[in-house]
Amino acid sequence: MGNKLLVAGTAAYDTLETPHGKRERVLGGSAVYASLAARYFASPCILSTVGEDFLEKDEKLLGVSGIDTRSLWKKKGEKTFFWEGSYVNDLNSASTLKTELNVLLNFDTKVHEAHREAEYLFLANIDPVLQKHVLGQLGSLKFSGLDTMNFWIESKPEAVLELFPMIGILFINEGELRGLSGQNNIWKGAEVLLSKGLKRLVVKRGEYGAVLFAEGKIFIVPAFPTKEVVDPTGACDSFAGGFLGHVASRGSWGFEDLRDALLWGAVIASFTVSDFSVGALLGADRKRVEDRADEFRGLIGIK
Amino acid sequence: MGNKLLVAGTAAYDTLETPHGKRERVLGGSAVYASLAARYFASPCILSTVGEDFLEKDEKLLGVSGIDTRSLWKKKGEKTFFWEGSYVNDLNSASTLKTELNVLLNFDTKVHEAHREAEYLFLANIDPVLQKHVLGQLGSLKFSGLDTMNFWIESKPEAVLELFPMIGILFINEGELRGLSGQNNIWKGAEVLLSKGLKRLVVKRGEYGAVLFAEGKIFIVPAFPTKEVVDPTGACDSFAGGFLGHVASRGSWGFEDLRDALLWGAVIASFTVSDFSVGALLGADRKRVEDRADEFRGLIGIK
Repeated sequence: MGNKLLVAGTAAYDTLETPHGKRERVLGGSAVYASLAARYFASPCILSTVGEDFLEKDEKLLGVSGIDTRSLWKKKGEKTFFWEGSYVNDLNSASTLKTELNVLLNFDTKVHEAHREAEYLFLANIDPVLQKHVLGQLGSLKFSGLDTMNFWIESKPEAVLELFPMIGILFINEGELRGLSGQNNIWKGAEVLLSKGLKRLVVKRGEYGAVLFAEGKIFIVPAFPTKEVVDPTGACDSFAGGFLGHVASRGSWGFEDLRDALLWGAVIASFTVSDFSVGALLGADRKRVEDRADEFRGLIGIK
Repeated sequence: MGNKLLVAGTAAYDTLETPHGKRERVLGGSAVYASLAARYFASPCILSTVGEDFLEKDEKLLGVSGIDTRSLWKKKGEKTFFWEGSYVNDLNSASTLKTELNVLLNFDTKVHEAHREAEYLFLANIDPVLQKHVLGQLGSLKFSGLDTMNFWIESKPEAVLELFPMIGILFINEGELRGLSGQNNIWKGAEVLLSKGLKRLVVKRGEYGAVLFAEGKIFIVPAFPTKEVVDPTGACDSFAGGFLGHVASRGSWGFEDLRDALLWGAVIASFTVSDFSVGALLGADRKRVEDRADEFRGLIGIK
């Protein structure tokens, strides 16, 4: 079903501790979350690199969830990227306890030939140089989204900025925006980035929602109210995945389309945080997502 | 014009430092900001107590701005409440450099007889015991709003809670809500307060906007995007003043009325922060406020 959306990023095993408990070596990674979020609207193809410890059952799980895994490269003798984080002190920001890059050091950016005609792309957070390699292989690209993080903004700012004119929209959080723009005020910071060849952006504000900047206009959306945040891991990736999945399904990216995509992204992220790992994303069918989107429109007064 | 709204709170002189400069002994105080904000919709009557240093020109300024000052009591031999604060390190939170309570220690809660028939009331942040005295003098009260602060929540929690069944709506910020409810999650915190005799509340989230809880429903509004926050002093009081002024002008407080009031409150607060002291509030006429409200509805997608 739907238009192809290539999602390039990490597939990982995470050990997570939150006020709601601890989970060891559960499925995670930006490309995994984003693909599972996008599948409500589009046909995601995941591009990532994993080690030989990546479980058969997890690859199958992606497959039965409608995700094409032909660009998911499995490297012999390598281990999958591992991250251990804790949200015990602050649900809004993880403390990293351990990072084992493992196979990420040999990330394979090759796009399977069956995926090279993909018209939609999400470059989840990996090295901007690798993101550019992926981008260069898609000859029919219509619209793409880019995520990045402080680590790349600080270590390779030129490589990040170089991507701006090539992509459709950037996803960035408030802190990253301040770092990259040199502006403390997010409205000014967005102006700075938009003057550097960037066409559109979404500023992510965590539990406060997100702001879309496009066509000289802005649109502000709050986060869906969530009484029980169980595990915030993957919220941003799910948000972007849902957003781009919706753009791909619509096949257009006018301001109204992007506004709707922002709402759907917020709705899908609200599922992600309500359980550990990808549990809630797997558990929510299209009907539940639609019902919550209706509820959300009511809460923010949008028809 | 309009229905009477009694606004009880402080009138003060403030010395303020922000990244945009410093101002010495400028007009301030919760009741001053709230009255000036409310006058776009209703006829505010200010109830406060000042010292004999309160300038004739400031009293006249309130008068020509349409604010009835007959409950503004001037005490001989006393000095007006003085506050010195700095936002140099953080525009979102003031560092108090000096507080001189002065005449606030003898706050006169007497409502002028011409104001006792007021049907609408805003109890801006003062001692909850004094707030109750004011409330007790209004025999025709239809709808009232209450503000408070951490200091009273910590020192006189019972007195704050005692007011809940008597008022129409509470204005509280996220930190205060956590303190008063014992809940870290604001959606749960609101439920706790609503189970303690409170009918409705607005949770203020600073630069991220506000959330209305009423009739079992919620409505989320972002803050109006402001590129230049010059002086945040009085933003919350202006927000509440605009909100209650709008309720008074509408004469009804169904969910839709309160939703509109929330939008107008956010719009008026955006003027307040764009200049020092009450400068921008005095400078904005009804037309400019209406234009910004139209712009705001567009930004958040509300008709």
